[in-house]
Amino acid sequence: MNRDHQPGCSPVPLVHGGDWAGYMEEYTGAQPLDFSANVSPLGVPPGVIKAITETAAQADRYPDPLCRSLCRKISEGEQIPESFILCGNGAADLIFRAVAAAKPKHALIVAPTFAEYEAALTTADCQITRYFLRQQEDFRLGEGFLQAIQPGIDMVFLCQPNNPTGITAPRELLLKIAQRCRECRSLLILDECFVDFLDQPQAYTMKERLEDFPGMVILKAFTKMYAMAGVRLGYALCADDDFLQEMRQAGQPWAVSSLAQAAGEAALNEREYADAVRKLIMKERPWMRRQLEEMGLRVIEGEANFLLFYSPVKLVQPLREMGILIRSCANYHRLDENWYRTAVRTHAENIRLMEAIREVLRG
Amino acid sequence: MNRDHQPGCSPVPLVHGGDWAGYMEEYTGAQPLDFSANVSPLGVPPGVIKAITETAAQADRYPDPLCRSLCRKISEGEQIPESFILCGNGAADLIFRAVAAAKPKHALIVAPTFAEYEAALTTADCQITRYFLRQQEDFRLGEGFLQAIQPGIDMVFLCQPNNPTGITAPRELLLKIAQRCRECRSLLILDECFVDFLDQPQAYTMKERLEDFPGMVILKAFTKMYAMAGVRLGYALCADDDFLQEMRQAGQPWAVSSLAQAAGEAALNEREYADAVRKLIMKERPWMRRQLEEMGLRVIEGEANFLLFYSPVKLVQPLREMGILIRSCANYHRLDENWYRTAVRTHAENIRLMEAIREVLRG
Repeated sequence: MNRDHQPGCSPVPLVHGGDWAGYMEEYTGAQPLDFSANVSPLGVPPGVIKAITETAAQADRYPDPLCRSLCRKISEGEQIPESFILCGNGAADLIFRAVAAAKPKHALIVAPTFAEYEAALTTADCQITRYFLRQQEDFRLGEGFLQAIQPGIDMVFLCQPNNPTGITAPRELLLKIAQRCRECRSLLILDECFVDFLDQPQAYTMKERLEDFPGMVILKAFTKMYAMAGVRLGYALCADDDFLQEMRQAGQPWAVSSLAQAAGEAALNEREYADAVRKLIMKERPWMRRQLEEMGLRVIEGEANFLLFYSPVKLVQPLREMGILIRSCANYHRLDENWYRTAVRTHAENIRLMEAIREVLRG
Repeated sequence: MNRDHQPGCSPVPLVHGGDWAGYMEEYTGAQPLDFSANVSPLGVPPGVIKAITETAAQADRYPDPLCRSLCRKISEGEQIPESFILCGNGAADLIFRAVAAAKPKHALIVAPTFAEYEAALTTADCQITRYFLRQQEDFRLGEGFLQAIQPGIDMVFLCQPNNPTGITAPRELLLKIAQRCRECRSLLILDECFVDFLDQPQAYTMKERLEDFPGMVILKAFTKMYAMAGVRLGYALCADDDFLQEMRQAGQPWAVSSLAQAAGEAALNEREYADAVRKLIMKERPWMRRQLEEMGLRVIEGEANFLLFYSPVKLVQPLREMGILIRSCANYHRLDENWYRTAVRTHAENIRLMEAIREVLRG
């Protein structure tokens, strides 16, 4: 037993963005402007707030473990059969369930990418092979990845567009990857949590190929598009019912709260909200990129609601002192503490960030 | 791939109570009177509803993965150091995390008991030894259980009071069990989710012995006492920080939603509510027991907010048709479809149930 760490529930170093709570502990309650989490900057949609408020009084009942009503609604929205859908306590819950269900011995992930794939695989004592994306190629995934998928690789994680780079893989490459995974009997977990932020999501999503690739699981979340990170709601799409059942049984039956189920149903009515978010991101992302480049910083040409960039001057702590959080990428493989990820937010907020970065760079 | 099951997200048979959603699908929206889930009958406390409502608008932020503020509050309430506390997405989340962290090879559980211990152990491909409680002894745990704890048993699950029987194990026996587990290096998972419903919780809880038994994990939930089953919030208490860390890392970092964290803090202010629940249960449980016994039914002398009883006449379906849900115990080891579990609810509701059962028994 180790009693040496600092008191409180917080001995683990936090490796993700979005730690506003840590900021508020340090700065005694002050609210930071948070660019470290990639969520819609337009706030929780009013319809979602209303749904949560109305459901609170009935939260004495257990949630529907099968999320029946929500699944019907997702099925309509995604145009995917209900039996292909499994809801989870955020997409992160589904990452852990997929690993717990598949029990892979040897998995392939790219680097850099979202940290929870490796976290889940590590819990399962799985050997991990990393396919390193090259800085010189703007961290783009190339055909070389196909050769990394070999018999014996049980599971492949891929994030489209990738996090923290925002870079997409061409659809043709993804199809080849899915085919190669099928040949090698590798389960392909395709994380499309940010796909709806792309200018043309339909040109990238693989969801209409689910039946061709029953060994492919697509992950999606309400978290980012509908600003529901605190509610916890994601879903998996897969044509292999048996595997979805195994994922369901690889965790507790009541993972998705009643509040999240109601919030999700309400979110799917918020078309105008989602359109407004997409339009905002499409306009603000190139603006922020130009601003950062004008400061002489290298910016990766990401296509999602965040940007990865390199700064020779350290930014996290000085910005933090100015009340602004951005994400240090020091804990990503192949990145270091000079790489940063920033969310794309509203124009007024983005101006504040750009001015703050300019100030830090001026010294 | 199996395409033969009925459409929808619902191919798995539901083995738990609380499936109001299934009832509402069958009876087109009618609300059942639900005695199949063991939650406080006084509804979600107003302070909890208020906290959820107030937090909804800030749910665009990720939840605090460390639940810092909530942990402080639980620490005060339980008089347990903050570093001994890990919050989860309901106690069920923590059952799966404990198993995922400990990776037991051979576990011991009693039968009958709560089904999720076995579900979690099965996911981990763990060998399970069942210690069968005897009907003739009212399913009481005796000293014989000590002999079942042997070197090679990595993990022992125990529910105090037991679910679905409501029977407590004497404190002296629990101490011996904890000692025996320590000798055999068996991790003891002690589920105290219903302990606060006992007339004298402090005479049964092992929480002040955590430091003596660092290999003991106590599970508790907000679900039952504060009628928050739909919110999802539970916590584990353990003096072994390293093991708590392993449990934390055995799942996603954001398991506990912001709404649940706020709800939990508010719930801990609801002392009068909790007292009222306890008083109600203390009064209604013996009343229900007498009523059932007067109908000639065998009732196990449970001490929690539910009662296990035996009826020679089948009850679930006829009661369901009258708009009332009770829990069939057909899927518990050593019980069958003539055993039923009913929650203890308000007097008016309990009268309705008793009249309905009388009607069914009369044929």
